[in-house]
Amino acid sequence: MGINEANAEAVARIQRGTARLTGIRMAGEVVPGLTDKMILHAGPPVRWDQMCGTMRGAVLGTILYEGWAPDAETAEEVAASGEITFDSCHHHRSVGPMAGMISRSMAVYTTVNDVYDVETYTTLNMGLGKVLRMGAYGPEIIEKLRWMNGAMAPVLADALEALGPVDIKQLMSQALQMGDELHNRCKAGTALFLKTLAPAIAEVGGSEAPRVLAHLGSTDGMFLNNAMAACKAMVEPAHNIPDSSIVTALSRNGYEFGIRVSGLGDQWFTAPSPYVKGLFFPGYGPEDQDRDIGDSAITETVGLGAFAMAGSPMITQLVGGTPTSAIEITDRMYEITEAESEMFRLPNMDFRGTPVGIDIRRVIESGLEPEIDTGISHKVPGVGQIGAGLTVAPIECFAKAVEAFAARAADPVAPRAA
Amino acid sequence: MGINEANAEAVARIQRGTARLTGIRMAGEVVPGLTDKMILHAGPPVRWDQMCGTMRGAVLGTILYEGWAPDAETAEEVAASGEITFDSCHHHRSVGPMAGMISRSMAVYTTVNDVYDVETYTTLNMGLGKVLRMGAYGPEIIEKLRWMNGAMAPVLADALEALGPVDIKQLMSQALQMGDELHNRCKAGTALFLKTLAPAIAEVGGSEAPRVLAHLGSTDGMFLNNAMAACKAMVEPAHNIPDSSIVTALSRNGYEFGIRVSGLGDQWFTAPSPYVKGLFFPGYGPEDQDRDIGDSAITETVGLGAFAMAGSPMITQLVGGTPTSAIEITDRMYEITEAESEMFRLPNMDFRGTPVGIDIRRVIESGLEPEIDTGISHKVPGVGQIGAGLTVAPIECFAKAVEAFAARAADPVAPRAA
Repeated sequence: MGINEANAEAVARIQRGTARLTGIRMAGEVVPGLTDKMILHAGPPVRWDQMCGTMRGAVLGTILYEGWAPDAETAEEVAASGEITFDSCHHHRSVGPMAGMISRSMAVYTTVNDVYDVETYTTLNMGLGKVLRMGAYGPEIIEKLRWMNGAMAPVLADALEALGPVDIKQLMSQALQMGDELHNRCKAGTALFLKTLAPAIAEVGGSEAPRVLAHLGSTDGMFLNNAMAACKAMVEPAHNIPDSSIVTALSRNGYEFGIRVSGLGDQWFTAPSPYVKGLFFPGYGPEDQDRDIGDSAITETVGLGAFAMAGSPMITQLVGGTPTSAIEITDRMYEITEAESEMFRLPNMDFRGTPVGIDIRRVIESGLEPEIDTGISHKVPGVGQIGAGLTVAPIECFAKAVEAFAARAADPVAPRAA
Repeated sequence: MGINEANAEAVARIQRGTARLTGIRMAGEVVPGLTDKMILHAGPPVRWDQMCGTMRGAVLGTILYEGWAPDAETAEEVAASGEITFDSCHHHRSVGPMAGMISRSMAVYTTVNDVYDVETYTTLNMGLGKVLRMGAYGPEIIEKLRWMNGAMAPVLADALEALGPVDIKQLMSQALQMGDELHNRCKAGTALFLKTLAPAIAEVGGSEAPRVLAHLGSTDGMFLNNAMAACKAMVEPAHNIPDSSIVTALSRNGYEFGIRVSGLGDQWFTAPSPYVKGLFFPGYGPEDQDRDIGDSAITETVGLGAFAMAGSPMITQLVGGTPTSAIEITDRMYEITEAESEMFRLPNMDFRGTPVGIDIRRVIESGLEPEIDTGISHKVPGVGQIGAGLTVAPIECFAKAVEAFAARAADPVAPRAA
């Protein structure tokens, strides 16, 4: 298969894929390869001593929640001791926003692409403010994690069982047509998701139902986790197609930005994670931010997030820019992508499909870095989100990937070592 | 006060007005002037023998629901006998979609404009399919009305009491920025409304909570009633300003289209109600439709509905046209209106406010009839909605109003009878 054919196949798989939310399970029971004393994190692999403030705080919170240490000080020793295995969510068919923590005792949504028989995982969104994904690890965080995973998760699991699978891809398509770009703005997705589940939650939730419904409606970003797991389910079958130069992961750990490419297996191509240019909440500025972090840029790999900004003029009020600049961003992304989405269409661009399938060759040829529309975390663990804005996937990642891709293509004709 | 000053004051009142949903009561207890054996209907006043199929069916359903007749045949006799008083919803600070039926034993939402101390009323939306507002009156309709008014209404009343007033104007502003035009498309408004109420419904609703939540999410048009009552609450204080030529009601009874003008008191200026040009559901065509019907064009008086179509490219898939034609419609409506909305802004027009405050003089001068974005009812009672499309407020209404307005202006200098 030539590169172009391989890329067409990769993008066809992204387009054909489904994403149905089937249920909720404990991570330790379902996430492949997730062992005891293992913590999955966002982005490419990263060591404890490399981790940014947001991720270090989140690791401490995870250790405390799992009971692997009695207090924060001990948790820090445990984290540094080597007894915890850190690994990328992406290595376990999982994704998480910001720090992206997943450990055995966290509940995860199970999302299925039934065309390709792939199941992906993501934790329940914790809401706004001081939350684990932003590096918070105080007692109230641990308490809330206990409630979410111990009380809310069973209610949602029962509700989903009563309701049957929920078509997340379809909800995303609708939400996109309601001004969400499904990365930084998930207001419509959150409301549609809650509307879909509410009757079943009231039916099975007993005395927890009001709190569960209040939590699901507590932030417009609640649906992001579901959107991310859906994107991961759609893009996963496009990975590992020999000769394809299509990007299958864009991800950041707050230290490095990493990309993966379909035809280049499990290798990450990394560069220092950039800072985000955007609007800061009152009292905060660029000097307070951690570097770009989170698996959430998986949305950009399927034509959402900044790639769909044209359809989300409202997001410019959060990240800066104007409705016109939002359209310009989407327009530019058509230059680095293979196709137009069949499912995700932009009403205000006459229902044109969003740009989908980033080709590393086109990025290098055009010099256009993929745009990412994202949140900004304070560098001090646990302060939380301090703004939102735009950043890019660094060209350096693509330069390295193109080099590896060229070497790979040369392989068949290269002389073998005797 | 000159006409221009009067119009500025009228529009300022529309802009400043609030719309908070405060609760639910029985119509007979709160709707001013609603007496026993009275039925309020959409549009200007209309006699039984003039009523279209949709409205006749709805009247029969109302009589059966109220127990004023034991069966449909007797109900028809009762309707024709003169013992029922028919009156316009608008005469009772009320509005209703399609046939618009309100009678004493129906629950109504109470919506308050607390800047001007005005309370308005609308019934609970019955959902899709065979429903009273579309003229259905079979046993299952009566049964559903009993459940809605007897079981759902108390749950919603308790939920609203627990929650406190809900800012409907604010929800509408958000929904507009999510692709609703708030007349024919209320998908975002419906989801945001349900999200707001869901925790309280689960808290107070007991075993009815799941059904109530399912009902509230059963159609994307559920929020229309709330939006209409909010618009009525906002526009009501703009009525009865001497010398103002601003339109304060656009309304249709399926027989006539009627408008009211701020400075012309309670007089209606009417013309035959037009047919709707649009898209029909499979199996139906233009020959099946009733004439345009409903109080829902109250949304157009405050700058929503067709006036806000630019922000709702999705609606063109329901009513016909393209995103470009939707923008053209909004653009034209700026020519016949006094101002731009301060609250309702169009993201894809760089957050320009929607055109608000129809001036009858501008309509006549420009020859541009106000556009209305609406649903289409089958002419046979109870078949239900068969499509959606665009229509206009007939120029004849405005010509009559301008004539009356000119006569009024002459009054002060006209010689008095001795």
